[in-house]
Amino acid sequence: MSEIRMTNLTINPVVIATERGLRPDDFRRKNSGDINKPSACPFCPGNESKTPPPERYRIGGQGKNWDLRIFPNMYPAFRKEGNSRVMVNFALSCTIADAHGAHEVVVETPAHDEDFSVLPIDRFRNLFGAMVHQMDDLYGDKNIRFIQIFKNHGEAAGASLEHPHTQLICMPQLPPLVADQLHRSCLYEAAHGESIFAVAIARAENDDRVVAKNAKFTCIAPYESRVPFEMWIIPLEERSRLEHSASDFYELATITSESFRRLRAALGFLPPFNVVLEENPPGCYQNAERFFRWRFTILPRLTKIAGFELGTGFYINPMPPEDAAKFLRDAKI
Amino acid sequence: MSEIRMTNLTINPVVIATERGLRPDDFRRKNSGDINKPSACPFCPGNESKTPPPERYRIGGQGKNWDLRIFPNMYPAFRKEGNSRVMVNFALSCTIADAHGAHEVVVETPAHDEDFSVLPIDRFRNLFGAMVHQMDDLYGDKNIRFIQIFKNHGEAAGASLEHPHTQLICMPQLPPLVADQLHRSCLYEAAHGESIFAVAIARAENDDRVVAKNAKFTCIAPYESRVPFEMWIIPLEERSRLEHSASDFYELATITSESFRRLRAALGFLPPFNVVLEENPPGCYQNAERFFRWRFTILPRLTKIAGFELGTGFYINPMPPEDAAKFLRDAKI
Repeated sequence: MSEIRMTNLTINPVVIATERGLRPDDFRRKNSGDINKPSACPFCPGNESKTPPPERYRIGGQGKNWDLRIFPNMYPAFRKEGNSRVMVNFALSCTIADAHGAHEVVVETPAHDEDFSVLPIDRFRNLFGAMVHQMDDLYGDKNIRFIQIFKNHGEAAGASLEHPHTQLICMPQLPPLVADQLHRSCLYEAAHGESIFAVAIARAENDDRVVAKNAKFTCIAPYESRVPFEMWIIPLEERSRLEHSASDFYELATITSESFRRLRAALGFLPPFNVVLEENPPGCYQNAERFFRWRFTILPRLTKIAGFELGTGFYINPMPPEDAAKFLRDAKI
Repeated sequence: MSEIRMTNLTINPVVIATERGLRPDDFRRKNSGDINKPSACPFCPGNESKTPPPERYRIGGQGKNWDLRIFPNMYPAFRKEGNSRVMVNFALSCTIADAHGAHEVVVETPAHDEDFSVLPIDRFRNLFGAMVHQMDDLYGDKNIRFIQIFKNHGEAAGASLEHPHTQLICMPQLPPLVADQLHRSCLYEAAHGESIFAVAIARAENDDRVVAKNAKFTCIAPYESRVPFEMWIIPLEERSRLEHSASDFYELATITSESFRRLRAALGFLPPFNVVLEENPPGCYQNAERFFRWRFTILPRLTKIAGFELGTGFYINPMPPEDAAKFLRDAKI
């Protein structure tokens, strides 16, 4: 059983996958072989038997005629087994918990080579709908306190398979980093009487850092962009969870599509990237709308996280977001 | 002038390099060309004129007959110009500061291909001595509040040049992540009456997570290892800064050498890695020895920092440190 380890020293807990039985040889750079060819790709239609049962969700037809599938991750960091209680060992000054939860994969398109920046609008809507459906189901387990939805695209962003996919990881505790962001947002509203996200959006307008905008959402290059071309897709109305924007998924799909098309056009290629869903999880703050707003954080991975970043928590960003926003706005799409 | 940007939202400030004038094209994967061949390498003997003046420190002879050199970074994230004051803009809810400071490079060997794991003991002693000498000089500037010493080895660890080198970045403020670790250590000692580092060392002994040990230092695989084969080289005595261990640099050199030789032997190759110096900076806590101990944190980069890590601050480590320590101890060196 994998376990969560946390000490008094840092805000970065660790999931130790104790049962994998890896040997040092497993860390040699291996040729991933054929797994990224459609015939052998476990995420391609016709290869459904190569993904672990049970299929958790599906949009589309029977057999290999699906539009979107959700199934368990083959190498789950968190799983249903084990105890969800965190055990504190005071003598050893640490906490330890089973990595109880779930780890699922959403394959948002049957097309192996489909580029996220050219995904049809309906596929984006399906993807957002599947996220909401699955979170609703998984949060039904009272032992699941937090779900992180994320997407890794490209090897530099941590993707091991080429076929486009998104992941959900369900955890028995609120991550300290998430708790910290919610806490800071809450304090800000208490001290200043307005939402820090309303301020961030107004300031982006004022500084010409808006990349795209429609009736329901804005895409901004944030003031404190950690990496070149970082973007936040954020609702214009006060919504603290993705599911609260469900009636606006058409507008969310169009702005997401536009943002990725602009990224691709500005750079001349679609770079490796991560997308992270940030929201106020159920069971955390009530009435969080006043101070916290959900968002998709898009982090292109064109720079490396190196010793300076690991030691200080600072990022060095060679592309000012004011310039990045202009390049993205000016890109021909 | 580059600037530091921080908001109320996160603990990760950003250095925005506003003056570089990069275009999106600059992020295309470029062939680094000849810069990693010794004839063109700016860090190789004979090419001293390719590094920016002034030479800040040197061990060895004249001209190209040096053993170690320190000079300014060609693309400094922080520089002497500008104001060291942090300006808070309450209306815009952010702080902004010039990236005042310094950014220097230590080339610890003239040999382009010298592997850090086979660096002679005297070179390690020179390197540690140069770190102390340079920090002593740079902390003399009262506007410098924090110096991060780090080493990036290999492209996956963020190194752009192959020739072995180490970097110093000097900043006008204490990084929130460093302040947080000092604060937590201080609170731990207040609550438990002992140093959290003494506990970590005792616990590593108890759990067979010691990789190497001599009269002055121990190298442990920490309980909460974030990455496979993470190691901490830490003094057995209560020392809060690297310079307080200056009389023990022979023992520090031998344990550093042994730790890297074990890493290389266990894996069969020297992986990309970062080394981060963690210490209590001057001007921060007084008498920090009781609760904080300096250390070198060695982070092999065999896994990727992806969307889950960026969203939650959690790391997923597929190699339990108990196993890693055994592999490292058993390696034939």
